[in-house]
Amino acid sequence: MISKKKAPNHVDNNNQEYSTDEYYIKRCLELAVKGYGYVSPNPLVGCVIVKKGNVLSEGYHKEFGSNHAEVNAINSALSKKKDVKGSTMYVNLEPCSHFGKTPPCTDKIIESKIREVVIGTIDPNPRVKGKGAAKLKKAGIKVRTGFLEQECKEVNKFYFKHIKTGLPYITIKLAQTIDGKIADMEGNSKWISSPESRKFVHELRSKYDAVLIGKNTLEKDDPELTVRHVQGRNPYRAVIDKNLTPDLNKKLFSDGYTDRTIIISSEVADAFLEKIFLERKIKLLTAKLKDDNIDLKDALKKMGKLGINSILVEGGAYTCTEFLKQKLVDELLIFMSPKLMGKGLSSFIPENQMELSRKPVIESINMGNDVLIKIKL
Amino acid sequence: MISKKKAPNHVDNNNQEYSTDEYYIKRCLELAVKGYGYVSPNPLVGCVIVKKGNVLSEGYHKEFGSNHAEVNAINSALSKKKDVKGSTMYVNLEPCSHFGKTPPCTDKIIESKIREVVIGTIDPNPRVKGKGAAKLKKAGIKVRTGFLEQECKEVNKFYFKHIKTGLPYITIKLAQTIDGKIADMEGNSKWISSPESRKFVHELRSKYDAVLIGKNTLEKDDPELTVRHVQGRNPYRAVIDKNLTPDLNKKLFSDGYTDRTIIISSEVADAFLEKIFLERKIKLLTAKLKDDNIDLKDALKKMGKLGINSILVEGGAYTCTEFLKQKLVDELLIFMSPKLMGKGLSSFIPENQMELSRKPVIESINMGNDVLIKIKL
Repeated sequence: MISKKKAPNHVDNNNQEYSTDEYYIKRCLELAVKGYGYVSPNPLVGCVIVKKGNVLSEGYHKEFGSNHAEVNAINSALSKKKDVKGSTMYVNLEPCSHFGKTPPCTDKIIESKIREVVIGTIDPNPRVKGKGAAKLKKAGIKVRTGFLEQECKEVNKFYFKHIKTGLPYITIKLAQTIDGKIADMEGNSKWISSPESRKFVHELRSKYDAVLIGKNTLEKDDPELTVRHVQGRNPYRAVIDKNLTPDLNKKLFSDGYTDRTIIISSEVADAFLEKIFLERKIKLLTAKLKDDNIDLKDALKKMGKLGINSILVEGGAYTCTEFLKQKLVDELLIFMSPKLMGKGLSSFIPENQMELSRKPVIESINMGNDVLIKIKL
Repeated sequence: MISKKKAPNHVDNNNQEYSTDEYYIKRCLELAVKGYGYVSPNPLVGCVIVKKGNVLSEGYHKEFGSNHAEVNAINSALSKKKDVKGSTMYVNLEPCSHFGKTPPCTDKIIESKIREVVIGTIDPNPRVKGKGAAKLKKAGIKVRTGFLEQECKEVNKFYFKHIKTGLPYITIKLAQTIDGKIADMEGNSKWISSPESRKFVHELRSKYDAVLIGKNTLEKDDPELTVRHVQGRNPYRAVIDKNLTPDLNKKLFSDGYTDRTIIISSEVADAFLEKIFLERKIKLLTAKLKDDNIDLKDALKKMGKLGINSILVEGGAYTCTEFLKQKLVDELLIFMSPKLMGKGLSSFIPENQMELSRKPVIESINMGNDVLIKIKL
């Protein structure tokens, strides 16, 4: 499927060569990720329109509910008085063919007399899934599909997981010492990770729809879970509180972002709490119990229904271990710091040995004095 | 110092470009490492002789006590009836100018009428340290020094540590789960690391002069500590046994390689043990005590005097922690396996928090399903 035509400038920083088609799909991905944090539960999409070897225009999906990437690219060309008729459109994900918040992209493409559409990967959304490509073909547009598919799926891993399963993509993030401790016996953990790692965590928060902690972490750390060390929007901040006994003085319930706070509980609020939650715009999500604990899968399904595509689980040990035991985790991000803790709190507390995955995909990146280990399960 | 002259073929697999000088020094390093495990306590040295852009011959130091790399390269040219007169010699370490096991290399170089010598890095050995280069210059040979110095020092990191401090280069190696455990509560650890990691450990053993364990590990695991999964020579196998109460049935004391076994103790052998050690060629090294434990630094100095340049410490937790506490460690190699142990033995057991290094150099490599984290302290 991949065009063998190569242009000399189609080489990236790692000296990898790309075909012309791959080159433009790669550009689509660069545009797509500009929407990180703002388009969910929609996918990240970028679009490039090319005519006779020249880029006429570019576009990306900027915000949930607003124009899709394809429409933005076409409009951008029009605003520059450039004629897209006979051009080739590159897009990392199949154009939609249904009415959602906006009209179908396929109609706009057909209407614009674009000659050819090159698609990174098919949209697994049952409302699209090949129908977009078929509609374009039926209108006489040449369609080619399957360029940098792995990269296209990786960029939209949150969307793919959610659309296929209804569940958000779950990443556990933790910072530990070499001897596997996340805090000292008093629960102090500030000492562990490097400034670079902490900054990166804020970047992650700006990309994930929600961060999640257990009640122990709330009580001990009283975290803000906001994005401060980088530019970006705050995620939802979810806390598991089975018996619904929130300390309303904690930051999650009293700072300026309480409209971004979600409590996951098996209980419903009494009149007093209900009034406060309403005032402070705190969301309460009632989940089933399983073995007298919150049924995490049920909670995740309900979060998925709220349009939450992705959750960054930020501990502590009990919560992280439960997610792993219930096989709900897609990815682990472990910041390893070249320190020893000795006595302290373990990163995980399973009762039994656990093989996390038969074929994990492991990657590691230096981050200041730490190493970040990424494990896809 | 680095020549800017570039040849188009001087590009390595990572697309890094090298000057012509660097290119040949790189080749010297490739030759040098063929001596791994056999030349210690001598350094690893490779040599290339080039005349009018053509390689006349190559050589490396193959075995302790045998000809040095420079002499091997000159002899190789002579055996092919090639005239080295007027040629350029490349060598990763400064040629020696003193009588050791063999005559000085400088004499042979001068006698061969080589025109120019290009040296990777100066030999820190006080008996050489610039004297080799000076002697060559005095004889009218052009000498240039300082090419790929960092790589040259890295290849001979064992030699450099030993020659500068009298102590061997110390590397701690361990395999642990993500939650920082090296074995279950019964001490079983077979489950932890991947076949690729275990094979790599055998490669390490073939390169290090000695491996070292504590008495607990000897008792629990009865390890062989030999090189089996790869080709290579067996290292010395050192075990710390403070009170000198060896179980003579253990493999280290009874297998076919007891001449490669060293016991480190504060006690001297009684007549019975002395006889057995003599029969089995087991070495006993008597070290001082410090706070009622073996003074590790004293033991290491004595191992250094035996010509042991490098030691791979293979645990357990008590021994590894002691080495770190006494600040005797140069490098940590941690094989992280994507598994959780839960209850089990910790990789390290310090009483207090420890920052291992202010500026550690961290590198990480995928190894089968594991990640190998290298930390230079």
